[in-house]
Amino acid sequence: MQKHVDLEQFVVIDETAPLTAKTHGGRAKCLQRLVRLNLPVPLTVALPFTTVRAIATGMQVDTDAILKNFGERPLVSVRPSSEDPDWGGPGAILNIGMNDARHAEYANLLGHEAADELYARFVQTYSVEVAHLDPDSFEFDVADSAALQEMLAAYEDEAEEPFPQDPTRQLRDVLRSMARAWEGTSARLLRQARGAPDDAGLGLVVQRMAPGLGPPESGSGVIQFVSSETGMPQITGRYLSQAQGRDALEDEGAFYLTVDQRGKSLEEIYPEGFDKLVEFGAACRQRLREEMQIEFTLDGGELSVLDAVRVQRSSQAAIRIAVTLAEDGVISREEAVLRIPPGGLQEMMHRRIDPSAPRDVLARGVAASPGAATGRLKFTSAAAQAAAAQGEPAILVRRETSPEDIRGMHAAMGVLTMRGGMTSHAAMVARGLGLPGIVGASTIHYNRKDRTITAPDGRVFAEGDLVTIDGTTGSVLAGEVALLEPALDDMFRTLLDWADEFRDIGVRANADTVEEAQVALTFAAEGIGLCRTEHMFFEEDRLTVMREMIFAETADGRAAALDRLVPMQLSDFTRLFQLLDGKPVCIRLFDPPLHEFLPQTREGMRELADALDLPLSKVTRRVDALAEFNPMLGLRGVRLGVTMPEIYDAQARAIFMATVEVTTEDNPVIPEIMIPLVSARREVELVQGRIEAVAAEVRTKTGVDFRYRLGVMVETPRGALRAGEIAAHASFLSFGTNDLTQMTYGLSRDDAGRFMSDYVQQGVYPEDPFHRLDVDGVGELLKLGADRGRAERPNVTLSICGEHGGDPDSIAFCREAGFNYVSCSPFRVPVARLAAAHLAIADLSPRS
Amino acid sequence: MQKHVDLEQFVVIDETAPLTAKTHGGRAKCLQRLVRLNLPVPLTVALPFTTVRAIATGMQVDTDAILKNFGERPLVSVRPSSEDPDWGGPGAILNIGMNDARHAEYANLLGHEAADELYARFVQTYSVEVAHLDPDSFEFDVADSAALQEMLAAYEDEAEEPFPQDPTRQLRDVLRSMARAWEGTSARLLRQARGAPDDAGLGLVVQRMAPGLGPPESGSGVIQFVSSETGMPQITGRYLSQAQGRDALEDEGAFYLTVDQRGKSLEEIYPEGFDKLVEFGAACRQRLREEMQIEFTLDGGELSVLDAVRVQRSSQAAIRIAVTLAEDGVISREEAVLRIPPGGLQEMMHRRIDPSAPRDVLARGVAASPGAATGRLKFTSAAAQAAAAQGEPAILVRRETSPEDIRGMHAAMGVLTMRGGMTSHAAMVARGLGLPGIVGASTIHYNRKDRTITAPDGRVFAEGDLVTIDGTTGSVLAGEVALLEPALDDMFRTLLDWADEFRDIGVRANADTVEEAQVALTFAAEGIGLCRTEHMFFEEDRLTVMREMIFAETADGRAAALDRLVPMQLSDFTRLFQLLDGKPVCIRLFDPPLHEFLPQTREGMRELADALDLPLSKVTRRVDALAEFNPMLGLRGVRLGVTMPEIYDAQARAIFMATVEVTTEDNPVIPEIMIPLVSARREVELVQGRIEAVAAEVRTKTGVDFRYRLGVMVETPRGALRAGEIAAHASFLSFGTNDLTQMTYGLSRDDAGRFMSDYVQQGVYPEDPFHRLDVDGVGELLKLGADRGRAERPNVTLSICGEHGGDPDSIAFCREAGFNYVSCSPFRVPVARLAAAHLAIADLSPRS
Repeated sequence: MQKHVDLEQFVVIDETAPLTAKTHGGRAKCLQRLVRLNLPVPLTVALPFTTVRAIATGMQVDTDAILKNFGERPLVSVRPSSEDPDWGGPGAILNIGMNDARHAEYANLLGHEAADELYARFVQTYSVEVAHLDPDSFEFDVADSAALQEMLAAYEDEAEEPFPQDPTRQLRDVLRSMARAWEGTSARLLRQARGAPDDAGLGLVVQRMAPGLGPPESGSGVIQFVSSETGMPQITGRYLSQAQGRDALEDEGAFYLTVDQRGKSLEEIYPEGFDKLVEFGAACRQRLREEMQIEFTLDGGELSVLDAVRVQRSSQAAIRIAVTLAEDGVISREEAVLRIPPGGLQEMMHRRIDPSAPRDVLARGVAASPGAATGRLKFTSAAAQAAAAQGEPAILVRRETSPEDIRGMHAAMGVLTMRGGMTSHAAMVARGLGLPGIVGASTIHYNRKDRTITAPDGRVFAEGDLVTIDGTTGSVLAGEVALLEPALDDMFRTLLDWADEFRDIGVRANADTVEEAQVALTFAAEGIGLCRTEHMFFEEDRLTVMREMIFAETADGRAAALDRLVPMQLSDFTRLFQLLDGKPVCIRLFDPPLHEFLPQTREGMRELADALDLPLSKVTRRVDALAEFNPMLGLRGVRLGVTMPEIYDAQARAIFMATVEVTTEDNPVIPEIMIPLVSARREVELVQGRIEAVAAEVRTKTGVDFRYRLGVMVETPRGALRAGEIAAHASFLSFGTNDLTQMTYGLSRDDAGRFMSDYVQQGVYPEDPFHRLDVDGVGELLKLGADRGRAERPNVTLSICGEHGGDPDSIAFCREAGFNYVSCSPFRVPVARLAAAHLAIADLSPRS
Repeated sequence: MQKHVDLEQFVVIDETAPLTAKTHGGRAKCLQRLVRLNLPVPLTVALPFTTVRAIATGMQVDTDAILKNFGERPLVSVRPSSEDPDWGGPGAILNIGMNDARHAEYANLLGHEAADELYARFVQTYSVEVAHLDPDSFEFDVADSAALQEMLAAYEDEAEEPFPQDPTRQLRDVLRSMARAWEGTSARLLRQARGAPDDAGLGLVVQRMAPGLGPPESGSGVIQFVSSETGMPQITGRYLSQAQGRDALEDEGAFYLTVDQRGKSLEEIYPEGFDKLVEFGAACRQRLREEMQIEFTLDGGELSVLDAVRVQRSSQAAIRIAVTLAEDGVISREEAVLRIPPGGLQEMMHRRIDPSAPRDVLARGVAASPGAATGRLKFTSAAAQAAAAQGEPAILVRRETSPEDIRGMHAAMGVLTMRGGMTSHAAMVARGLGLPGIVGASTIHYNRKDRTITAPDGRVFAEGDLVTIDGTTGSVLAGEVALLEPALDDMFRTLLDWADEFRDIGVRANADTVEEAQVALTFAAEGIGLCRTEHMFFEEDRLTVMREMIFAETADGRAAALDRLVPMQLSDFTRLFQLLDGKPVCIRLFDPPLHEFLPQTREGMRELADALDLPLSKVTRRVDALAEFNPMLGLRGVRLGVTMPEIYDAQARAIFMATVEVTTEDNPVIPEIMIPLVSARREVELVQGRIEAVAAEVRTKTGVDFRYRLGVMVETPRGALRAGEIAAHASFLSFGTNDLTQMTYGLSRDDAGRFMSDYVQQGVYPEDPFHRLDVDGVGELLKLGADRGRAERPNVTLSICGEHGGDPDSIAFCREAGFNYVSCSPFRVPVARLAAAHLAIADLSPRS
């Protein structure tokens, strides 16, 4: 029982036909635009999504009526026309209408060989793609003279009927097979992976064939006017005489387009056609407001434009094309900004593995810090530093890194660890440094003693062996692999400057050191949103003092040790304030648990006992006493600030003295001091009291007045819930979404690596909540915290400073929640700036 | 500039005087009640709180007017009258009005010696307590004949004036000094520690002295009619001839009250007076509805009742007194239930250290599990078991316990660890077993090798040495200390049965084993609210199978190992269901991280490698791979259930087979299965699907139909926030407040011990949030979760199963939030039942 589709089954594409990309697909719409440009587009009929969907469910379309549009005995092609060309679709089918009678006509017209090939090509495609017969039976070279007859016989044999001769039946079958292919599971998964919605529709376009065969000059080709790699003006493409379809372009006998010493070119053999194409390209650029690749045929010298699609492009090319179009007045700056997907910027900012290079992947880990690097395996920080000193690139390999490895990481080209996840020490430091990093590569066996690693396949790599790591994908590769350099050109800067014109939420960077801050400024961060101060206690000379502090018996003893750190930190902060030159710097007070400062090995403890002149038993006892079951949830952050207030006192002193040092009347430094891990109002009150006292002391001592802002890092669920009363004592609230996510889920990021991919695959989490802000859970706490904070203190500054700060979806969330700024790692700053601009522009001119 | 207090400065206590405990204090009110009972109370004037507060601020009261009530030349006493007698107050001052003139009169009346003593006593008290002169100058034996003159001289010398002779001035000074004492810091702290509010007031009562001196029989005494220890009827007290005040009672020459072979008794020497007192006692009991201790004097044979106070009582006595009063119809059952503070029950359920015994505290730790025990130090589980086998009580000492120590803990009388906090393994197991436990005794040095511990003072205790631990206070004591046995008598049961009549929220117990469930039933728990199943995998024979499971390479291999555990677990569940006999049992599926099942020492790993016939390197690698940075936030709970579903499958199979085994038509078993650590809806869906499949399989295989309930343990902040969508798949939500508190604060309970006391002392947290539910933060999540769960599924069962389940404030919170039940450790069940009854009764008859 088949039903007929009666109304608006199809439409002939002319200038006024009622067509949209959302109903008939992008290709149909684009063809209409080409028609409006008066380009020589062969007659085309468009089937809307509704018709194609009806066909897939078994309804019949009036193919006779379609074919009537093309006059008598037409040959036609059918091509897919989905809403977004990126979503794919079934392959084009050409030469529909070919049969014994047409074959005879073509034999007269073009000769037997050409006619045979044309018919054979159609029989082959129809049998395999439409009739779904065994492809093996149709594996013939269509140029072979016997192919046609053998395939016609094979068809009859397998399909138990002669090859269909009726063009209306041929077309009906073609349309049905293409409609059904779109509904197939693999097509569905593929397009969904590319961002298509569940109900994405397929349109089809039926077009009169321009065969591309016959004298004087016939053939087919594609042409584009910019480079897909760079976006620079450059005519590229191929043309093949006596050929049809895109496949022909792979033929070695194809011509170049412009005059070329390597072989024949279209420009030479048919300059009029070439000039026309260049003209068409310019028209497309101007009127379609895009760089298009044009598919064309020549038929006896007559040019047809079969189709035009957006030029494929790298991120770098995309930026140049957009900026150039805007500079030429073809599109607006908003439009140029909107055309660049923020995520695409990321790859440009790091070296990457040449996609065409061969690769020998020996293991995979967590892709912790993007970018690729080649270097020699080094198993200690000292070895990595030594290598760097000799100009030899090193990849630092550790089971996991500790603060003692920071110098080694600075020296290395990349870092590889066997343990840890996205917030492990190695991952955080690597991202901060912009250093390619892979962590948690647990399938690699690490042999500390022999200084080797064993790959899962048994291969052993020793110190000094060359490897390449790809922190963007998490792959560890054997040997040296060709890398592509980052491409941060003027176009990139121009685009981001334009983005800033529209952006309405601030973007700062997380930067701990002057070096990182420098990178942040290069990417035009508006300030530092998170300056972690831990590293200031880990550097070699300071670590010893820190350890003395830890072993001091009294508050006075601790204060005395810390006093010795003040001058060093004063110099750190001074350099930072000078560099930032008035831009805000938000300094997070000391956060890590003290045991991170103590050695964990027996040897380390023995050395420490010697250094501090203490009995070993005392050292081991203290190390034991400070060990924690769950360091993430232990004695750190403001808890240390409350129970050992000397640490924050010393930090505040250094910050205020640096403030006095750098501040001038015209350009006052107003440091922002942030208290970590707050879960109760009283914690803030206690720290506030001490810090105010230190400020008063520094003001008195120096005779210089200064202001500062005290705020809270909201990173516990309770901190978010109590944000109201906390805001009463805080001029800003910065949400630390890393820890907040960990605590909201009860999920340690370092330990989640073992099952996260399983969880995402099974759809337990739609995405890794450490990459994409969990809007439902963590997001609710953010909103709630923001609302309560603002209710108590309307002018409280709100921001996020977790890893999510650079994620476009998370930025959208923060913007909607009315946050003042986001802070992310320096290398994410451009992404954040662009993503924020997109959001603002979308709000300005809502698109349908 | 002193001001006068004019209005209502005082009131004479008669039957109709407008007096309340809230305005004049409990003593004044009680005296009025005694007056109403027609007891011979000497004339008394009551000063309300307002007057006393005014006096303290320097205003003057008209003492002349007060004294006029007592006729000419009276001697009076002043006693404190705070709202609640437990809040303390300044000591009584007697014989006000005594001066040279009265001294002469008394010398005539009673003889010089008595008169001298009376006057000397007043001068001494007045000089030290009222005039605040140097106490050393008044250190005289008042019975000494020279004392009076020396003290008068000393007064004149120090105060630079003669001893004040004017009774109105004497009284004024006494009142002022008592009023000011109440406002002093130490008095304030003391009463606040006893639960008094900031603005607690003090009343004072001025009473005519009944001197207790002179012939034929004069003296003073106290009498009560029940034992303070047991609450059984028993006349107790002392009487001292020719004496006044309570102090005299400590005199060795005091009489017994009832006939006593040890010495003279009031009953013998003055039977009429004795009979009257017994009559007074009965009147008080009937009319004041309380067992009272009566303070009385005899003056020449005339009986006066100076005061009556509630009999001091142990918790055990309190229960017997309340129950007996209710059984006698004197008070209602509600009243009896309300009179017992729930917290007081706790001490009765465990052995405790005899408060009168001498104690040698060698260290303190976290009071992790209440009760006291004496035993010999044993440093391994094996040693503790060996000792137990010989009937020798052992205290198991470990740095920290692991599941392998469970047998040792079962065998021991108590457990002591150097590490961990209230949720450490040792603490949890000890509470479950009702075993006295101290954890985190970090000042003790643990010498594993020599099997000794060293106390902070340097004393060393070796294996086999006797110690006593007091898990109620956290004290570790040297040697054996006298212990009092728990007192769970019929009265206790009666009271709790009455409590259950009023209670309107369920009380279940957390019980993991049949033994714990037995205890829970003894305390009349209504079911098991949390049955953790981990222990079922830790027992010796099972541990090996578990380890095989962990080392299996495939899901099939894991399933095969787990299959071998099913029969053992089937028997565990069968016994549990049989014991509970239809009462609900809520079984929590497997929760701990797998690394808890693996050895952590090199030797252990070597043994395991041998046992499993695996290379040592493979074992160490697996142990390494499973280690976690923050186990609390790692791969455990439902995360294991999702990624290694074989574990839950096996558990569900055992539960369902036990259900089939025990269920009968009349008494079906409906097991409750609880999924731990849920943070996302999809986790529940996935587990639900698998469990339903197992149920179907068991139904098919056995041919028996059964029902079960699947629910979720809400213990992550996200679980609470998403309780709505989670409840769509859960017939109950049980809030695990331990983990929820940890994650909401970002605070590991095991690691918080190091700074918790500091935090509570500084007021950062008003209380340890692991003891008292944090209503502001965790409580908001509970409410939010409960509301959202119920909005989605109105009949969802709501409960809490964390440690807070037994805390009265937390029960109040849950009751208000409409929870169906609380679940707590078995030994907290009586506390919870009583606390819940209090709340329900309070709602029935709101008290002013």
